[in-house]
Amino acid sequence: MNVLAPGAIIGILGGGQLGRMLSLAAARLGFTCHIYCPDADGPAANVSAYQTVGDYLDLEKIKLFAQSCDVVTYEFENVPAQTAAACAQFAPLRPGARALEVAQDRLTEKTFLQDKAAINVVPFADIANVYDLDRACKRLGFPAILKTRRLGYDGKGQVKIGSDSEIKQAYEALAGAPAILEQFAPFRREVSIVAARNEQGEFAAYPLIENVHRNHILYSSTCPAPDNNAPDNTSSNQPSHIASEMTRAIMDALDYVGVMATEFFEMDDGRLIVNEIAPRVHNSGHFSQNAGCCDQFELHIRAIAGWPLGDTQPRHVSVMTNLIGAEAADWQQLASHKNAHLHLYGKDGARAGRKMGHINVVGAPLPKSGD
Amino acid sequence: MNVLAPGAIIGILGGGQLGRMLSLAAARLGFTCHIYCPDADGPAANVSAYQTVGDYLDLEKIKLFAQSCDVVTYEFENVPAQTAAACAQFAPLRPGARALEVAQDRLTEKTFLQDKAAINVVPFADIANVYDLDRACKRLGFPAILKTRRLGYDGKGQVKIGSDSEIKQAYEALAGAPAILEQFAPFRREVSIVAARNEQGEFAAYPLIENVHRNHILYSSTCPAPDNNAPDNTSSNQPSHIASEMTRAIMDALDYVGVMATEFFEMDDGRLIVNEIAPRVHNSGHFSQNAGCCDQFELHIRAIAGWPLGDTQPRHVSVMTNLIGAEAADWQQLASHKNAHLHLYGKDGARAGRKMGHINVVGAPLPKSGD
Repeated sequence: MNVLAPGAIIGILGGGQLGRMLSLAAARLGFTCHIYCPDADGPAANVSAYQTVGDYLDLEKIKLFAQSCDVVTYEFENVPAQTAAACAQFAPLRPGARALEVAQDRLTEKTFLQDKAAINVVPFADIANVYDLDRACKRLGFPAILKTRRLGYDGKGQVKIGSDSEIKQAYEALAGAPAILEQFAPFRREVSIVAARNEQGEFAAYPLIENVHRNHILYSSTCPAPDNNAPDNTSSNQPSHIASEMTRAIMDALDYVGVMATEFFEMDDGRLIVNEIAPRVHNSGHFSQNAGCCDQFELHIRAIAGWPLGDTQPRHVSVMTNLIGAEAADWQQLASHKNAHLHLYGKDGARAGRKMGHINVVGAPLPKSGD
Repeated sequence: MNVLAPGAIIGILGGGQLGRMLSLAAARLGFTCHIYCPDADGPAANVSAYQTVGDYLDLEKIKLFAQSCDVVTYEFENVPAQTAAACAQFAPLRPGARALEVAQDRLTEKTFLQDKAAINVVPFADIANVYDLDRACKRLGFPAILKTRRLGYDGKGQVKIGSDSEIKQAYEALAGAPAILEQFAPFRREVSIVAARNEQGEFAAYPLIENVHRNHILYSSTCPAPDNNAPDNTSSNQPSHIASEMTRAIMDALDYVGVMATEFFEMDDGRLIVNEIAPRVHNSGHFSQNAGCCDQFELHIRAIAGWPLGDTQPRHVSVMTNLIGAEAADWQQLASHKNAHLHLYGKDGARAGRKMGHINVVGAPLPKSGD
């Protein structure tokens, strides 16, 4: 086990807001960060000691970058396999290449979850051509969702199919990209677990988080998620515990090191189905920055540095709301809320749909063991 | 009133741990920082977008620095007057040159506090030569403390005089530096207020902080300070309120913008005497980073940016302990404490007496209005 001492250099692939907040957390522990990203003016570089601007496929630059680092991590799951392999030659890559491989391809992911981690997923089918799609629709029924296997986020690269007559058009919409068909899950809400695991197998998870989306983009996250099964809609530990144990099983199966998020559909009967995993810090975990415990960014840095994991037991109910596009222009008003903590990413242009910041509102105190 | 929008550039004179934590707080609000300091490898540069390495008296460099900034602030009170004046020509300097002038010279400071802010200070005398010292000792009595007017910190530049026979030696120890003699205050403890004021005159203060020193260096700070007058030694608002109002009077008299700390001697009868002011964020305010409210670094950034001041009401009792010299080498053990938040400054060499980091331990919840 390599334990990194303060002063060590942490390499981060990706220079967006997740890289920025990772870098800020690393600084608190005395680490120095080196950002690798294609854009010179991303949010992370301004708060990091070093930056290499380069294409992810420029493996010569990647090599020099990795050689300068004591550990390399990433803020996004679409790191090319060659890039990950090139990094891993010169520095420990945490989480590893296997987590990327699984998370990058929806078919690999669902197959892995079902076969290797014994996790409930929606019925799915591999779609290579329109005939596959036709057969799969018969088997899975309507409605079903056709998704590209790779890339696609915030609702992009997805088509809902409601009947036989929509099959051909749906297939054409994906322009021949390899795809997966998933049975539609009539979920009552989306929830997630943000958890960490270190090389020794130590595991720590925040309580279950309830996520609300608008226009396919995360709008708000509440932790702990109110319990839909409890008569008074307060929080109970049970669904949180089940979701946390599923996440632990996935992380163990991947021999995962770092923070990972698991997104679940919660069905009307309370059953949890894994939708997808994100092998990185996650938007739904931002609440943790002001919840009175270790935040997900520091948790990730601790895990990849071989440190003891931090405390994931929040002291307060927290509600995180994203500031999308022009919403961040209200910063003066947002900054005047008591009980609210404003986080802005230092981005220049407030394009529609672009995540510009978030605000964490701190609510009622939670009982805490050890107080 | 100039309100700075996110993206504005904040200049910081000084590149130590206070500059570093100011820069981290500024980043959370979307600001970009430019550090000016004489050392290339100070703690602040690694987390800031820009750095100018230069002497504080290189006024040509200072001019270019200030021209690049939307506001300039400082992390230490010994900014030379010429440097402050050169900055103020090209960007708002917050807090202003007057705060520096008062805080840099113990005689100016005590005279100002007594005459302009009507604040209790210990009896004192201006010492230009050994005859002044002789006369002053007769007037103020023994013990008394002879201090250089300028510079000196953590007990440096101070001599205690216990009797007539020690006068000559004490005077020679200061090697002719202009000095001040202060009557010794037999205080029962040292407390401080960390507060902010903005250009509109809005004022916000954390509760009273109790400070314990070891070897003349701050060892720990507890907020709220336990109340020595209360029979159960719990916290009461009264001394906190009195100290806070004294601080407000000083800040109003200076037309102060930013965070300021006021250090007090608390006498056996509960009376508070101002020892000194620090026109900057202060070691005794570090607890605020994990107290569940706005921390002193963000509070300072908000004040100098013309933003509404943040919430200074802690949610928990907090105890900050400094990690001095080799103490920071215990980071692995320190990082494993539950309810503790570790902060390391990224300094290379752990010289004896050097502040390497601190740890904030979160204690019992405090009642909070608005919950």
